[in-house]
Amino acid sequence: MTEPWYLRPVASIDEAAEQAARDRQGQLTKPPGSLGRLEEVAVRLAAWQGAPKPALDRVWISVFAGDHGVAAEGVSAFPQAVTTEMIRNFSRGGAAVSVLAREAGANLEVVDLGAVEDPGSLPGVRPARIAPGTGNLRREPAMTAEELAAALAAGAEAARRAEAEGAQLFIGGEMGIANTTAATAVACGLTGDSPEALAGPGTGLDARGVDHKAAVVRDALGLHAPDPANPAEALRRVGGFEIAGLAGAFVAAAQRGIPVLVDGFIATTAALAAVRLNPGVADWLAFGHRSAEPGHAAVLAELGAAPLLDLDMRLGEGSGAAAAVPLLRQAVTLHNRMATFEEAGIPS
Amino acid sequence: MTEPWYLRPVASIDEAAEQAARDRQGQLTKPPGSLGRLEEVAVRLAAWQGAPKPALDRVWISVFAGDHGVAAEGVSAFPQAVTTEMIRNFSRGGAAVSVLAREAGANLEVVDLGAVEDPGSLPGVRPARIAPGTGNLRREPAMTAEELAAALAAGAEAARRAEAEGAQLFIGGEMGIANTTAATAVACGLTGDSPEALAGPGTGLDARGVDHKAAVVRDALGLHAPDPANPAEALRRVGGFEIAGLAGAFVAAAQRGIPVLVDGFIATTAALAAVRLNPGVADWLAFGHRSAEPGHAAVLAELGAAPLLDLDMRLGEGSGAAAAVPLLRQAVTLHNRMATFEEAGIPS
Repeated sequence: MTEPWYLRPVASIDEAAEQAARDRQGQLTKPPGSLGRLEEVAVRLAAWQGAPKPALDRVWISVFAGDHGVAAEGVSAFPQAVTTEMIRNFSRGGAAVSVLAREAGANLEVVDLGAVEDPGSLPGVRPARIAPGTGNLRREPAMTAEELAAALAAGAEAARRAEAEGAQLFIGGEMGIANTTAATAVACGLTGDSPEALAGPGTGLDARGVDHKAAVVRDALGLHAPDPANPAEALRRVGGFEIAGLAGAFVAAAQRGIPVLVDGFIATTAALAAVRLNPGVADWLAFGHRSAEPGHAAVLAELGAAPLLDLDMRLGEGSGAAAAVPLLRQAVTLHNRMATFEEAGIPS
Repeated sequence: MTEPWYLRPVASIDEAAEQAARDRQGQLTKPPGSLGRLEEVAVRLAAWQGAPKPALDRVWISVFAGDHGVAAEGVSAFPQAVTTEMIRNFSRGGAAVSVLAREAGANLEVVDLGAVEDPGSLPGVRPARIAPGTGNLRREPAMTAEELAAALAAGAEAARRAEAEGAQLFIGGEMGIANTTAATAVACGLTGDSPEALAGPGTGLDARGVDHKAAVVRDALGLHAPDPANPAEALRRVGGFEIAGLAGAFVAAAQRGIPVLVDGFIATTAALAAVRLNPGVADWLAFGHRSAEPGHAAVLAELGAAPLLDLDMRLGEGSGAAAAVPLLRQAVTLHNRMATFEEAGIPS
């Protein structure tokens, strides 16, 4: 039996470029450290790109879509048909991530891993349909082993396309009615936290709806007993096509040396799964925003992650990461274009 | 005696446009509230502009520069000559705010209110020199009444220029070696907080330097006894040309109906002074970032302000506000360009 592709080592970081970038930051016309996290971002991009003066011209966004059998348990404020309606909305450019991608000059693709309703052929939507939705994780595994492998591979294919287009940053988004329920189950499985601590309103449940969602997740954990040491099996049993797609994309991006800007609760849960599958992935992750969804803090803490933005967003789609792209651009432009003390004739 | 110009009422907010914008947010293809503060920003801009679909094409940045007599007390890590060197750096485009202004497509001007060394004629620098630096606030008032009036008026002139260019957002920055000492003194005077609580490293003091700075401010407060109920006199006695310039600009921007995006500790202290001069100003303020400078939290709290960014920046120049401009642009573009549920054919 061959080793799964996702265990292969990630790309290495260029420490010389990192040091050169850090040295440059110390020479720019400002008190050392006074640009705060914008300095860190520039240095990190230098390390990832192997370039003391990094660039951020090509940003790639893949939004993975899929439906969830657990929607039958009444865990979402929206009907399942909305998954496909939103795929159409992405395609027409009317969704939040569509608008943010245009604003950031990013390439946006949607990967349909299995909405219940087949959206058919649409511009910007790549069909990679595994099944019309996952199994209901409260009663059965969400996926077969073959379905999980297909979802992970579809994510890896997205990273391959991003690399082919010279992407300097990969953002993964998701769409799938009921997917905060699946993400909560995966997050509980990987962190050991309780469903009651991590379940949140998602698209807009009230307190009673959140309690029901937590109960559904608790049932699922009782049935499947996901093992933190076996992240692939946790993804298979209580995950979703788009969550596994994200995890596969993040691993493959790290293997190909493309840094990932992680979005909110669902994407961060997928990032945690990716890091559990292959710990080296952690070196290639940055975090765009802190979501208002309560489970996000727990998975961020597990990853030791500090997102750039904290704007009470909780939309998913990759929108919170896309919103942070201008900050990364500013970090790069400041790093590359500010005068040094020597250039400005100021004794440092 | 005529009433000072800064007591004249501020422009009124358009509540109908605000409500129309709020209604539109509820119709966009996302769960209500899921874009968090980006929704609030769009609604706020609609209220300020009187337009249910606001725009943010023209951003104006005035950086006020001035020197401080209190620099003689050894309260800064940099020599006083750096104020003028940085004015030259702004003019050449090498400073952080220069780079961020270009990136944001903002108009940047520098207003020299009195650096010790006259920078002479420079592109993008407007001479409005009141004196070669203020008096040493540890030993004497920083300004005469005429000097304060000139600084406030110079700020108002900047707002007038911004209005003439159709600015939809006003950012005020500052440059002046030792100006965190003056800002700390003003902030203590207006909030009643202690110098020990508010003094911070500024451009890079060590702990001993911060203690010395707090002691200098304590001496100044003992000498001048600034009265929270008399903000103009507090500005005159322990402020600085650029701090008063900012306060004047913020009042005049509010009177002319131009919203202000406030920068870090010094600009927020000036904003607090502006609100104390004319409480209506508060309606026209938004806050770009939370500075790492410890006094910032205190003046933000006094204003009940919640900045958009928190990136450990502490540079001044208007850089933290300029860094937040892309977020405001995203808020506007999402608001104007996202599809409604009806347009997308999704039952909301």
